[in-house]
Amino acid sequence: MFESLPKRVSVYEVGPRDGLQNESGLVPTADKIAFVNALARCGLSRIEITSFVSPRWIPQLADGRELAESVIRPPGVHMSALVPNRKGLDVAIAAGMKEVAVFLSASETHNKRNVNKTIADTLRAFHDVVGPARDAGLRVRAYVSTVFGCPYEGDVDPNKVLALCHTLLATGVYEISLGDTIGVANPLQVESVLALLTSEIERDKLAVHFHDTQGTALANCTAALAAGISTVDSSVGGLGGCPYAPGASGNLATEDLVAMLHAMGIETGIDLDKLVECSRMAANFVGHELPSKYLKAHTGKQARARRQLEREREEA
Amino acid sequence: MFESLPKRVSVYEVGPRDGLQNESGLVPTADKIAFVNALARCGLSRIEITSFVSPRWIPQLADGRELAESVIRPPGVHMSALVPNRKGLDVAIAAGMKEVAVFLSASETHNKRNVNKTIADTLRAFHDVVGPARDAGLRVRAYVSTVFGCPYEGDVDPNKVLALCHTLLATGVYEISLGDTIGVANPLQVESVLALLTSEIERDKLAVHFHDTQGTALANCTAALAAGISTVDSSVGGLGGCPYAPGASGNLATEDLVAMLHAMGIETGIDLDKLVECSRMAANFVGHELPSKYLKAHTGKQARARRQLEREREEA
Repeated sequence: MFESLPKRVSVYEVGPRDGLQNESGLVPTADKIAFVNALARCGLSRIEITSFVSPRWIPQLADGRELAESVIRPPGVHMSALVPNRKGLDVAIAAGMKEVAVFLSASETHNKRNVNKTIADTLRAFHDVVGPARDAGLRVRAYVSTVFGCPYEGDVDPNKVLALCHTLLATGVYEISLGDTIGVANPLQVESVLALLTSEIERDKLAVHFHDTQGTALANCTAALAAGISTVDSSVGGLGGCPYAPGASGNLATEDLVAMLHAMGIETGIDLDKLVECSRMAANFVGHELPSKYLKAHTGKQARARRQLEREREEA
Repeated sequence: MFESLPKRVSVYEVGPRDGLQNESGLVPTADKIAFVNALARCGLSRIEITSFVSPRWIPQLADGRELAESVIRPPGVHMSALVPNRKGLDVAIAAGMKEVAVFLSASETHNKRNVNKTIADTLRAFHDVVGPARDAGLRVRAYVSTVFGCPYEGDVDPNKVLALCHTLLATGVYEISLGDTIGVANPLQVESVLALLTSEIERDKLAVHFHDTQGTALANCTAALAAGISTVDSSVGGLGGCPYAPGASGNLATEDLVAMLHAMGIETGIDLDKLVECSRMAANFVGHELPSKYLKAHTGKQARARRQLEREREEA
């Protein structure tokens, strides 16, 4: 089943944006700056750091510009920001961003509730963002939500997703992230949706973004990896979810993903121990435990027991 | 990747035994009886209800005989019990059990620490249990622990596991459950170990028992299903783990498994709503939240939001 397994996976970190926008409390900007800088030092080469949306929509990310202007951007680390419109793009450019992301849903009702526009109108509005962004030297990523199911409409037609992908690529985005917004995808469905999409679209233009609402995110990643997909979105510690999808929660935790990839012999360039330190940092400033299982297994009692065993094994 | 996917999966429920033996508190026998009876009413056809070991080892299961004699056994529901030796088997037979399970580890150090015997001595001792059990009309299952990694020895040679499986089948067990005792397996390893084992052993004699310590249990199940394995062990709510493997925790939650199987169109015969009720019952008598993600997603606020959406969708 793993003949097409990629040798290397590009992990796209969404914690500072997708994660923190779903935290009820406001995180001080200084903490966010330290967090993003620490993430960049882990070997993560792609980090979505904020969103340039109205602070009335998402007060958690109102400090986007200050954050973007303050973080250290090591060579080879691509930082991006979500932009809903031309205004957001202008701020992103002014703040020195080299990459932005646009977003829409594969289902009309979810799109309408999320951005108050039809899908067709949203796609039209992308022309005001994607072209100017590229003209300014930025690259543009697109998120498609509710690819594997919609909280309002239920099943989503994969052919509609395919058509959307073609339109988005024609608009000029370099990569499309396929979102399981409410965590209802299953591995068989992932295989079948990706078989359809990759029959017409190059694999390296597609990324997957699974939610772990029902515990299936890594199972779905396994199916996506088997289909030859080599870009996976995740959120350190499992921070975040989607505020517009009731019942949804739980981004896939980056350390859970990276630990599995490394165990499978797949390179990521990420230092797992440093990544876990970032998770602890985030748990500390959001003030609650994060859902990552790898984090739990390597924290506290269990970690002490593991270290004890390692010592015994070394002595034996 | 899913050409060999089974149409139906046999779920082997270990919650009342593997789950409760790892709870620090003692659960009243009446609660256990109600729990097992409720599990049998969910459509689960295989339930490991207790262990006939010395109460000095596992005080949590000291009421095994009373439990076995008190539960209702509907036609078609196979109830089993773990037995460490002939003495345990005799109690199992006296208590009316029709199935027992024996256990050993694939790694010497884990076996030694678990049962204070070498693997060879453990296999020899099985002759005192398996033959007499079969003579008394019982069927016997075997658990092999640490198949995918040992907390003391690290990697485990799959060829050693293969040899163990042959010996166990020759001894007369009808099925072997391959345990990832400390939750370190990955899907690529699962594929490769199962490719070796199924090259010599029929798929329907093998079951998988994954732990979700690092969040990979369903990913590993996905690889096992793709390899044509059709028996999966799990524990309702995610109750339990292995007390002899420091750092280990988290059986795969039965409802997480069943939800994924059903989403993949795989039959189990299990009523998922009734199963979730059993989880709530268990959470109640053990006095703490259980780790199942499906349970969380369908409890409280999230469940209310989902029901609200369903109503809106019905009205639309």
